[in-house]
Order: sequence, then C-alpha cells, then structure tokens
Amino acid sequence: MLRYALLITLLSGAHAAVPPLMPMPAKVEPGTGRLAIDGGFSAAVSGVIDQRLDSAVRRVTARISRQTGVPMMPGTTPTLRVECSARGAQNPTLGEDESYQLDVSSDGARIQAPTVAGALHGLETFSQLIVPGAEGFEAPAVHIEDRPRFQWRGLMLDVGRHWLPIEIVERNLDAMAAVKLNVFHWHLSEDQGFRVESKLYPKLHQMGSDGLYFTQDEVRRVVAYARDRGIRVVPEFDIPGHTTSWLAGYPELGSAPGPFQIGRTWGVYENALDPTREETYQFLDRFLGEMAPLFPDPFFHIGGDEVVGKQWNANTKIQAFAKQHNLKDAHALQTYFNQRVQTILKKHGKIMIGWDEILQPDLPQGTVVQSWRGGESLAKAVAQGYRGILSSGYYLDHLQPAAAHYAVDPLGGAAANLDSEQAARILGAEACMWGEYVDWETVDSRIWPRAVAFAERLWSPREVNDVESMYTRMAAVSRWIEWTGVRHRANYAPMIDRLAGGNPAEPVRVLADAVEGLGLSGRKRPGFKYTSQTPLNRMADAARPESEVVHAMQLAAARRSPEDAARLTEQFNRWAANDARFQAMAEGNVLLVELKPLSKDLAALGQTGLKALEYLSTGQRPPAEWLAAEQKEIARMQRPAVEVNLAATRPVKLLLDELAKPGR
Amino acid sequence: MLRYALLITLLSGAHAAVPPLMPMPAKVEPGTGRLAIDGGFSAAVSGVIDQRLDSAVRRVTARISRQTGVPMMPGTTPTLRVECSARGAQNPTLGEDESYQLDVSSDGARIQAPTVAGALHGLETFSQLIVPGAEGFEAPAVHIEDRPRFQWRGLMLDVGRHWLPIEIVERNLDAMAAVKLNVFHWHLSEDQGFRVESKLYPKLHQMGSDGLYFTQDEVRRVVAYARDRGIRVVPEFDIPGHTTSWLAGYPELGSAPGPFQIGRTWGVYENALDPTREETYQFLDRFLGEMAPLFPDPFFHIGGDEVVGKQWNANTKIQAFAKQHNLKDAHALQTYFNQRVQTILKKHGKIMIGWDEILQPDLPQGTVVQSWRGGESLAKAVAQGYRGILSSGYYLDHLQPAAAHYAVDPLGGAAANLDSEQAARILGAEACMWGEYVDWETVDSRIWPRAVAFAERLWSPREVNDVESMYTRMAAVSRWIEWTGVRHRANYAPMIDRLAGGNPAEPVRVLADAVEGLGLSGRKRPGFKYTSQTPLNRMADAARPESEVVHAMQLAAARRSPEDAARLTEQFNRWAANDARFQAMAEGNVLLVELKPLSKDLAALGQTGLKALEYLSTGQRPPAEWLAAEQKEIARMQRPAVEVNLAATRPVKLLLDELAKPGR
Repeated sequence: MLRYALLITLLSGAHAAVPPLMPMPAKVEPGTGRLAIDGGFSAAVSGVIDQRLDSAVRRVTARISRQTGVPMMPGTTPTLRVECSARGAQNPTLGEDESYQLDVSSDGARIQAPTVAGALHGLETFSQLIVPGAEGFEAPAVHIEDRPRFQWRGLMLDVGRHWLPIEIVERNLDAMAAVKLNVFHWHLSEDQGFRVESKLYPKLHQMGSDGLYFTQDEVRRVVAYARDRGIRVVPEFDIPGHTTSWLAGYPELGSAPGPFQIGRTWGVYENALDPTREETYQFLDRFLGEMAPLFPDPFFHIGGDEVVGKQWNANTKIQAFAKQHNLKDAHALQTYFNQRVQTILKKHGKIMIGWDEILQPDLPQGTVVQSWRGGESLAKAVAQGYRGILSSGYYLDHLQPAAAHYAVDPLGGAAANLDSEQAARILGAEACMWGEYVDWETVDSRIWPRAVAFAERLWSPREVNDVESMYTRMAAVSRWIEWTGVRHRANYAPMIDRLAGGNPAEPVRVLADAVEGLGLSGRKRPGFKYTSQTPLNRMADAARPESEVVHAMQLAAARRSPEDAARLTEQFNRWAANDARFQAMAEGNVLLVELKPLSKDLAALGQTGLKALEYLSTGQRPPAEWLAAEQKEIARMQRPAVEVNLAATRPVKLLLDELAKPGR
Repeated sequence: MLRYALLITLLSGAHAAVPPLMPMPAKVEPGTGRLAIDGGFSAAVSGVIDQRLDSAVRRVTARISRQTGVPMMPGTTPTLRVECSARGAQNPTLGEDESYQLDVSSDGARIQAPTVAGALHGLETFSQLIVPGAEGFEAPAVHIEDRPRFQWRGLMLDVGRHWLPIEIVERNLDAMAAVKLNVFHWHLSEDQGFRVESKLYPKLHQMGSDGLYFTQDEVRRVVAYARDRGIRVVPEFDIPGHTTSWLAGYPELGSAPGPFQIGRTWGVYENALDPTREETYQFLDRFLGEMAPLFPDPFFHIGGDEVVGKQWNANTKIQAFAKQHNLKDAHALQTYFNQRVQTILKKHGKIMIGWDEILQPDLPQGTVVQSWRGGESLAKAVAQGYRGILSSGYYLDHLQPAAAHYAVDPLGGAAANLDSEQAARILGAEACMWGEYVDWETVDSRIWPRAVAFAERLWSPREVNDVESMYTRMAAVSRWIEWTGVRHRANYAPMIDRLAGGNPAEPVRVLADAVEGLGLSGRKRPGFKYTSQTPLNRMADAARPESEVVHAMQLAAARRSPEDAARLTEQFNRWAANDARFQAMAEGNVLLVELKPLSKDLAALGQTGLKALEYLSTGQRPPAEWLAAEQKEIARMQRPAVEVNLAATRPVKLLLDELAKPGR
C-alpha cells in the first residue's frame, strides 16, 4: 500500500496515474495500462440476483454515458463485472459490510463485494475513475480495496423551515450515494412547517405547511429511492419543542393557550407540547404508529433540542403535575416526556435518537444521542453507555470552509480520551443542512461540494488529511457530482444573471467570484428581520460559501512562480477594472446598489495586489506607512458587509504579510 | 405609437423605460411609474372560466417567483387581472384571434384578450417586463397592444435521428410559449428511428427505435402540455422516403428486398415504401387511422422529401405498375402516392402537409406545402392556390447567426411579387431543428436563443428589424427563457468541464467562448464518418452557434471608445495568455489535443489585436507588409477547423480593416 503522502502526489500531479477520487479509498495501488470506456461499455452482475444492484448498474451506466457524452449501445462482453456474494439486508442496515474491491486492467474491470451495499460503493468509485485519455475515455489500471471508517455517514436536511420538494431530495440522495454517504436524516417538522401528510391527524399538514408537504406516497418513494442507493432514511419529528406548526392544527397539544400560527421568523420558539397530559401521549402513540411503517429503518429521531421551559413553568397545571411526580424542573419534565416517547417508539419497533439535550439522568438505555453542541456531550454520552453520532463541527449552514469540517474528527477532541469500547459507540457523524437561509435554488450549493470533504472524513482512513489534496480532488468531484443532478454549480449563473437584471452580468460575476456568502450568524441586516418569506436572491445567496477563484489565488500568492505572478496580475487587473462597470449597472437596482462599496473595495484590493506584486518582483521594500495603511484597510475589509465576506482580501493579505517579513 | 427606431432607443438605453421585450409587441407606449412585484403578487382571471387559463396563471406566477427569487404568498387584491372575453377554441386553432392588450400602472396590471390564446401571450409579455428596480422587483408602467403578424409560427423538432425524451420536448414547449411560437411540428419518424408506439403495428417502434420511443400516453401528455400553452402539435410521419426504420419491422412495405436495419449513418437513404402495392395503403390507412386521434390538430404532415427514385426504377413490378398507370417517372409515382395518402388522411379528418417536393402537377388542392428548398417553391405553391409555410432560411441546424434568420421574411424574396390574395396563403414559417448533430445535451443550445430572433420575425411588425436591438434584447431573453427549464446556457459549463477532464477548465472556456460550432455541412472530419452513435462531446458541440463574447468585441471594435479599447485589451491579453495554459492541459486528452493549433491561433489573434489597438491609439500607420501578412493569417484562420469557426478573427479583422482604410 502506498503511503498517503506519496499517493496524493500521484493523484494531484499533472500526469496523474489515478484520477481524483473522493472519498479516498482505504487502499489504492495504481497499475499499468488503461481500460477504454466507449459506446460498447456494459456491466454485468454475477453472484446474486438483486433488483437494487441491477438498477444501480443501469443507473451508473447511464451516468457514465452522461459524464462522458458517449452514447451507450452495450456490447456482448461486459466491460465491468460486478461480483456480489450476497444480497445483504433488504434495506440498508447500520453496520452492514460495505467493503468492496475494484480491479481495473486493460482487459476489463471487476468489482467484488460481499454485499450489495459494497458493490454500490464500488460502482461509484469506478465512475470517478473515468477521464478523457489519449485515445478516448478510459479508466486507469488500478487495484482498490476499500471500506468505510465509520458506519453512520449522514446528511441531515431540514425541509421544515424552507420547503424543499421531492426532486431536490432525490437529487441530493444521488449525490450522497456518489460520495458514499449512507444516512439521510430527514428533518420533517419545525415551528415553520410540518411536512408529511398524516391521515390520522390531517390538520398537521393541512394547517401546518402552507400546502407544502410530502404525501405518504412521496415519502415511500423517497425511502425506496434512498434504499436503491444504499441509503438509510432516518425521519425526525422534533418534539416537544419546535412544534409550532403542529399546534396550528392541534392547539390542545400545547402548553400555553392557543391559537397558534405557523412560525414565520427564525430563532427558538417557546411553544412546546404539554408533557403532562395523557392525550399528548395518545396523540403521539397514534401519530408515531402511523409514521413508523413508512420508514423501515429502526432508528427514529425525536429531536428534543432547544426546549424552552418557559411555557411549562408558566402553566399551573403542568407545574402541579411536575410537583406531584417529583419532576424538579423543565429538564426533568423533558426526561419524563422522553421516557414516555421512548416507550411508544419501542412499541412501534423503533430505536430513539435525539439531539444532545436529551442526555439527562434516566435517559433510557439504547437511545442514540446526536451531538450538536460540542464533542464533550458526545464523549459524555458514549461514556454513559449510549451510542452517539457527531454533528458539532459539521453544520453546513454555517458556511465554513470545507477545511474546517475536514479538520473535525468524530474521534478527535474530547472523544480522543475514550477507551476503545466507548469509542466504538461513536457510530459516525452527520452533516447538518439547516433551512433558515436556503431554498430550492441555493440548498444544493450550501451542501455541495463541502459535504464531499465531510464524506471523506467519515469514510477514509484517518491519515487521509492533506488539505490541499482535498481541495484539488474536491474541485474535480464537485463537477463530477453535478452529473447526478444536483445543481450547486448550475444555479450560480442564473442567480448572477438575475442580480444583473437582464444586463450583461460579467461585472456581477467578477464580484461574486471574489466574495463568500455568510452563514447563519452572519445573516443579518440593521433594522431588518428575516422571515421564511424573505427572498433569498441577493449576493449573499448567489455567492458560494467558498470561492474557488480566491482559493487558487491564495495558492498562487503563497508560491509566487512567474506563472503565478502572471495569473495574480490578471486577476488583480480584473478587479481593478471591474468597479467602474459595476457602478454603472448598479444604479437603480435594489439587488446591486448595496454592493457598491464592496465593489469599490475589490477594486482597491486589485490595486494593492498589483502594487504588492511590484514590490515583490523588484525586491524593493515598501514604505512602512504604506504597508501599515494597507494592512489596516484589509482588516477593515475583512469585516463582513451585506452578509458576505470579501474573500479577495486573503491573497492580497498574503502578499502584504510577505512584504512585512523582517528578513526582507 | 412610437416609431420603432425611437422605441428601440428607449428599450436599449441604460435607463430603459421598458425592459427588453422579444418578440417586440405591435405597439408599446411607455407610461409613468411602476408596479411593485413582491411576495404578495397574485393574478386573477375574469370573464371566462377556463382550465387552460387558470393553469397558465399558476404556471406564470410560479415562474415569476423563480425569475425574481421572490417566494409568493398571494395577497387578497390581485396585482394582475386577466380579463378574457371568450374561451375560444378548446384546442389551439390556426387563425384564431391571438391579440391581447396589456396595461401596467403603479396600481396594478391588466390583460384584456378576446380569447385564451391572446391572454396566454399577454402573460408572457407581462413576465418579460419584470426587472429589479430601485426598491424591489417591478414592472414599468406601459400600454401594450399586440397581435401576431403570422398565424403559423412553428418549431420543428426532429426526434428521429437522435432520440430526445419527453422532458426535453416539454421544456422546449415552455420556451416556445414564452416567445409566442404556436406550432410544434414533431418530426416523429426517420431512417434512424421510429419514435411512436403503434399498437396496431408494434414492430414499428419495437424494431425501429432501439427502445427509444414515445408511448401513446406520452404523446397525449405532450399534446395536452402544448395545448395548455397555446401550441398546436403537428405530427410528421415522413413517407414514402426516410422510412428505413419502418422497414426494419415491416420489410414487405419496401421497394427493394429486405431485410432492413435501422439507419445509423446520415445522408439520404434509397429506401422507400412501395407506392404500387395496395397493402401499402391498407397499412397506411390503419396506421394513420391509429395516429390521427392522438393529434387533435387537423394538419398532418407526411414529409415527402428527398425521395430517391432508384429503388422504384430498379423494381420491375413497380415499373410495370407505373407503365400501366401512365406514371412516367418517380415524381409521377410520388404524386400518385400522395393522392392516395391524401384520400386516407381526409377520411381520418386531416389536412395534408408535406415538404416542397410534394408540389407536383395534380397535387390535391387543400394541401399545405412547407418549403425547405427556397422561397421560390413557396411562391410557386401559393401562386397555384396551395397554402404554404416557409422553412428555407430557418434551418437552425445550420448554426447560422441569429441575424441571418432574422433577415429572412416569409413575404420577402420571391414572395415579394405575390398579390395580396396569394400572399395571404403564406401562413407563416417554421424553424427546423434537424437531429443529425444534436442530442439531449446540445439540442437546447442549437434552438435557443436563435429561435427567439425567428419568433420575433414571425410575430412582430415587419418594421421591427434593427439587428443590434435584436441582439441586445435576445441576450436578455436568452437568460430569461432558461427559467422555463430549457438548458441552452446551463449545459455549457458541464460540457466545458468534461472537455477539461476534471482539471480547472478556464483555459478551455476561454477558447470555447472564442469559437462557434459549425452546422450540418461543417460536421466532417477527414477519414471519419459520423453515425448516430458518435459522441457529441467535442468542442464543436460545446461551443455555441454564436459567441456572445465575440459579438460584444465586434461592437467594441467598431466603436473604439476608451472603455471599448480597455475591454478589447483585456480580452486580447486573455487570449494571448491562454495558449500556454491550454497546451499544458491538452496533452494526452483526446478531446483537447486536436484543439492545440486553434488555441495557438487564438493567442496569435490576441497579439495581433493588441498590436492593432496600439497602432490605432497612437495614430501610427502599420507597415503594409505587416498588415498584409496579418490579413492573410486571418483569412487562413477563418477557414473552419475541427468543426468550429474561430469567431475571434472577426473583431481583429475589423481593427485591421480600419487600419487599412486609405484615409488613415
């Protein structure tokens, strides 16, 4: 087995033996020669007869046809043989064997896997290997042995706050499968929306969703779609807090007098189910009993986060109940509630999961704790014998760079001190896509490509951690996964064009390429309150969480080869020239006018960058006052404005820092 | 009414009173003020109760939400009132009143139309008016009166040569409706594919389509989809030539002994139905009788083009029949065939249309002739009392510039000398998208945006003919129609990324932006024969038919303001710097390596452009030899290579021509 450092060199070189793979397999041995992928490509399955595998082979073949642009008319000899020893579980199952082996030679390719789950992963790796070669599309000869590091590799999608229709769910399932994520955590109810049809309690979706919900047929369709791709579906109905949308139709479940309206603003609501009334549990028993069979996975998420005790404390009946049952505070009341809910779920064949607030004394054993508040609570949970999954550090809605998520390890931080038995109870992790500031148009770009880095952290050996290799491979895989149907790249240009209001959009694009959208905490404007109806059509929404243009410039600024200097000069000139054009088109356009100072700053950065390059190339020392003034300007520009971050500051700052080095 | 010259100035200015509309309405009177389009937008219908209109209002409202990015939660007072006096025909009908009036003021908008057809057009115009203003999205106050110049405004789509699935058909119907095209001519059978399910003759689709055909349910779905958008569907089953795919399943219909295989190569095939056997007409009677009710429109296209007499001449039985019936040649045989087919179609309630080869003595009256070979045959047909539609000059697969189609008028050329009664028989025109060199990925970009220029030619007053105004408005509308779902712009970047093989694609994009794909006659490579299985994944497929980048540079080169000179300099520098980067990534990539000389030429053009700008700015006269040598180089570069046209030559040539002017 190659060392990763060496392997990564091989993979990222100009004449890469192996194309960029992500997540990096556990073992990759480059071979000699290449397998041609042409219009006669076909794949054949042996070993098992399995509908999931057959449809995966068809699906992946069709995708290979799209990604190469080669129409397929299968030949008689299979190019790829998929040998699968056993079907494995009918539904994707926690802990099943997901390993596979992939061999490519000039004669053909072979995937061997003990179960269908592994074979599906092998098909994805095989697709990633295909590149245009000297004579046509080809896959390089290679021997790969692969298996996941963690068994629970999830993506949580919040469809409660902003509605996301089934097409978006499905295409994201395809992209998840492409990078070997295997749990879709479907956050289905929120203060702002109840998103599943209930036949027993129809006012849940009728009065809690503005008509935007999944029918039960659609739920079954999504579950089947996920199953076909080796993905478990874990539903979440968040109780007892986050339930305003439930109360719109069933105010009698509440802890305060109604009526209740669907939430329209963000933040934590005080509304909560009444944990002291038997009717609440009768309702939940029937409701969860209705939902349970829709979701074949044994795990069932009941949320449990951010319960505000305020209504419970203010309600004399609830307080009387608490006193009578010796429940000393809201936490104790919630534990009581959880115990009741756990009993109900158990009756319906389900294992309870909840956010880490549920970790209270007397939490029923067997419960799984999902940690969002930090690694400490995860470590605490597994130390107490619970199983846990990590989400702290993996909040995609914070719009952090991919490297930040990549650096977080489920077994790092507080978990590093656990013994092996305890550590084994950390099942894996989930990246969370909360829905305050994403909609049908932007959600893909807030998940991808950063979730690819997360996927690698969960799948690949821990030693795979070279950040620049990750970025290089992520850039390629980001483009590749769009063939699954996700639109994180495709939706960029139309949003820029919209900002430009029908005018040639180039000046807006130059600015958009130089900024980064801010996450949850940065989404605020003076004197303005976001609601679920606020348009997400500004620069902050169009701009990506991480600028590829700026990232490339940072590398160039660090290296400063002649070619790097030439590219930086081009880009700085572009920024400098862009402002006059931008100002001309911004006037009278509400979406652009607020960006005028930003565009001016970008032009100034271009000028500063050019000047800095000049100092560096001539070896001249800049005046100290100039340097100090520019550094001050950069510091000012690094403060977020209009909900974006002027990423363009970074490469310029690198150059200034270089000029400021004492040795110069 | 404003004169068009003035109006166009108003529309294309920086502070346009009215956003770019296309097709330009018959009458546009800008008003004062603006109507805010916000989340409370809603539209209400009065006058008629009509499902088509109601669904159009919902559809357009949803599209306005997408194009603005503003989530809609309709208020109680309608923003837009649609007043429609009568439903009009249940199915879109040739010659129905399509007029409408649209009034926008700061208080609201109103569409008035005598029929649903007109109201649908009014909704599209209203959507085009919406732009981001100083306080939010808005539509400017305006009074519009509008009606079409021609009643038959069609797009022909060939799904025979390359299969195009229903999603592509549907999204193109949406885009057609957006620019007021009203006939979808569906070319359903070809030598290379028979694309409709026949229950009576199942071997047609089973053996003639590689499994790629529309079920009858899908046909009904497409017809209903089109009807909802005011679009007639005219099916074409091309007979007696172009029938190889029919003969694959039913060789007994042929004029030569079988067996026959689906065609895989392009060009004109010799295969033709046997016009002398009664069984042929029995087959056609039953088959056309099966198809007729699927298509409610009375017009039915039987093709009739490119019939090669060779098999008929070589078949002694056919020759004996011809002699016996006094049919002196293949033309006479085809006329006999057409008469028989016309009788069958009439029996099934249909009016026959055919390509202009059917115009032979004794062609049955009432037939409609579609002219593809030139305006003369159209003029001849209408002079003889037939009705006609023009397609010559509107072949989208030739990848001509939009201006070329825009310059062709159905009443121009040979039709200019017709009397008014004859001219009235020219019903309109159809743009034709033939399928040799388009597939699922490229067909949209070969139709749009150029078909928008065609749509304006057919809809707008003849005096609307300012080419630069057209290009300015087309650029905006090209972006706007992507909100209908067509992907002519969206599919560009993924194709460039594919060419780049996972590497950063910028050098490929710079080259792609500077070239134009060649049409039918330019799709050839030495020693290579295209088939229906040849991948369409090269630069010739990714490159657009017309480069927006180069078009803007041509305007700049003609004007040469300081800002123009700055932009030209940037672009020339980009070209000059691009080649080294391109060469580095092209090596070993079959899709790029053939483009290496082209990239080198582009770099040379950049250098020449910079030099020319220098001469122009300094007022210095270039040496005559330099000028001659550069002009010669440009002439060389203007010769097509690797199936593309180096469009970048044009702005450079403009500068050289300016330098060569004797007065300088």
